[in-house]
Amino acid sequence: MINVLFAARAERWNTYAPELTRAFAAAGLKVDLQQEFAPDVVDYIIYAPNSDLQDFTPYRRCKAVLNLWAGVEAIVTNPTLTQPLTRMVDHGLTQGMVEWVTGHVLRYHIGIDHNLEHQKGKWQRKLPPLSRDRPVTILGIGALGSACATTLASLGFPVTGWSRSPKEINGITCLSGDAGLKQALETAQIVVTLLPLTSGTENLLNAERLSWLPHAACLINPGRGPLIDDDALLAALDSGQIARATLDVFRVEPLPADHPYWWHPRVTVTPHIAADTRPATAAEVIADNVSRSERGVPLRYLVDRSVGY
Amino acid sequence: MINVLFAARAERWNTYAPELTRAFAAAGLKVDLQQEFAPDVVDYIIYAPNSDLQDFTPYRRCKAVLNLWAGVEAIVTNPTLTQPLTRMVDHGLTQGMVEWVTGHVLRYHIGIDHNLEHQKGKWQRKLPPLSRDRPVTILGIGALGSACATTLASLGFPVTGWSRSPKEINGITCLSGDAGLKQALETAQIVVTLLPLTSGTENLLNAERLSWLPHAACLINPGRGPLIDDDALLAALDSGQIARATLDVFRVEPLPADHPYWWHPRVTVTPHIAADTRPATAAEVIADNVSRSERGVPLRYLVDRSVGY
Repeated sequence: MINVLFAARAERWNTYAPELTRAFAAAGLKVDLQQEFAPDVVDYIIYAPNSDLQDFTPYRRCKAVLNLWAGVEAIVTNPTLTQPLTRMVDHGLTQGMVEWVTGHVLRYHIGIDHNLEHQKGKWQRKLPPLSRDRPVTILGIGALGSACATTLASLGFPVTGWSRSPKEINGITCLSGDAGLKQALETAQIVVTLLPLTSGTENLLNAERLSWLPHAACLINPGRGPLIDDDALLAALDSGQIARATLDVFRVEPLPADHPYWWHPRVTVTPHIAADTRPATAAEVIADNVSRSERGVPLRYLVDRSVGY
Repeated sequence: MINVLFAARAERWNTYAPELTRAFAAAGLKVDLQQEFAPDVVDYIIYAPNSDLQDFTPYRRCKAVLNLWAGVEAIVTNPTLTQPLTRMVDHGLTQGMVEWVTGHVLRYHIGIDHNLEHQKGKWQRKLPPLSRDRPVTILGIGALGSACATTLASLGFPVTGWSRSPKEINGITCLSGDAGLKQALETAQIVVTLLPLTSGTENLLNAERLSWLPHAACLINPGRGPLIDDDALLAALDSGQIARATLDVFRVEPLPADHPYWWHPRVTVTPHIAADTRPATAAEVIADNVSRSERGVPLRYLVDRSVGY
């Protein structure tokens, strides 16, 4: 029997315990999963950094600490933590992002909003072009952006990806730098923003850059709220330069109830749902690492304490 | 010189004539394409079922009737039609159908309607499952259905395809016959109907079969209107058995302005836009079949009159 301590806030237990139990069983592991154990019988710790557990010293038998979250900055400097530490790299999060982005791109592409707004008995045929005639630009082609780009390209869209430094992705027109940004925006009927937030990307989509887009482009932001200058976007929506926008992330979350985005007829607010760690897939990643450890196979997503991630 | 009669409504001529002329030339065929000929000199008929031409008897020299549309139910029972009949299988039409079906499946899957209906300042997070946990069933896995099935499977959905007679498609759970239909419906959170309309498929989705679906399933019909018993569907929507429906095809088109589908809050009417023949690609398919016929090569997409499609 393998003793696994679940050291995260109690409200996570109800969500994660059944998924972990299922994943351990699927991996053929005999596991006793509990929220409390005598420290010296614990084999593995599933950990969220806001847990009460902060002193790892008495967990002398523990073979690894498996972080539930991607970020480890709150635990990596803990001097009592001498056990191997793994980050969460949840394939479910990437897959969820791909599904959400693809869904909203296709929604704009095939004109679902137009159909929803014309449900009053008027039969007005308006055929969309084929995807091959609908250029899509993705700003930010890291792990999430490139997964979205590849999926959209597989559906026939001509996809341009932009990043600050040059990249290459098979089947995607990859542009970079300032000149590349202008070219990426000038051709885009649908823009998806998936950049990390840095001092160089804050307000990247300002009034000038929104004006580079073709008239009546659509914008989808599942990246970070501050990538967009909100006042510039609202002005572009009102002028028709931007036809529609779907925004999943905001400078302040939850988005305040009086924010104009909630009330604009051509803005869709979604409550930061485009990507999240999924308990089922995260549980599989944890079960896989326990299984690897038990078989003497190197852990995946092991944190290098010398660099901090 | 090959005499090809274009027997479709006059307004189609301006669209199709240049594309057909181009495609015949590209296929190396010397064709005289006209909207009128003496019947006994016609070699091929390009046909749309709402054409004035309903009596094929005098077209004794005609080697084939090449339908401009995918559906042939309005012509296949014409007793004067003894010539070989081909359906249109236009890769532009197939691609358009794949985009439309995938867009609406993803719309239901990621809950876009829920987001659109909650745009009043309330931040309510509701994460969808991943596609792998959203079984989709496609009733009808011919050219269109199998293309949709394969694309949805590539996005991670577990896809079941049902057809009257057994089929095999890589990556798709293929079921057939009456027992298979029950199994296909019992597992489906989203159902797409892409069957041809025959006496065996009319009202296929009646009250009993709708009751086989899991509670709150979604229905998408880009196939043919009479596949669905409209009264049964409206009752299932009102009971919550069907959560939402998107309907692109109807018994009477345009759908009459007072039809309840237009006014039901959980029904989306789209005006027969899911798939349309694209003139450039359709012209290539027709030129290819004329070329095949002239070379004595079997026609593609030949209709089997004994089964009706």
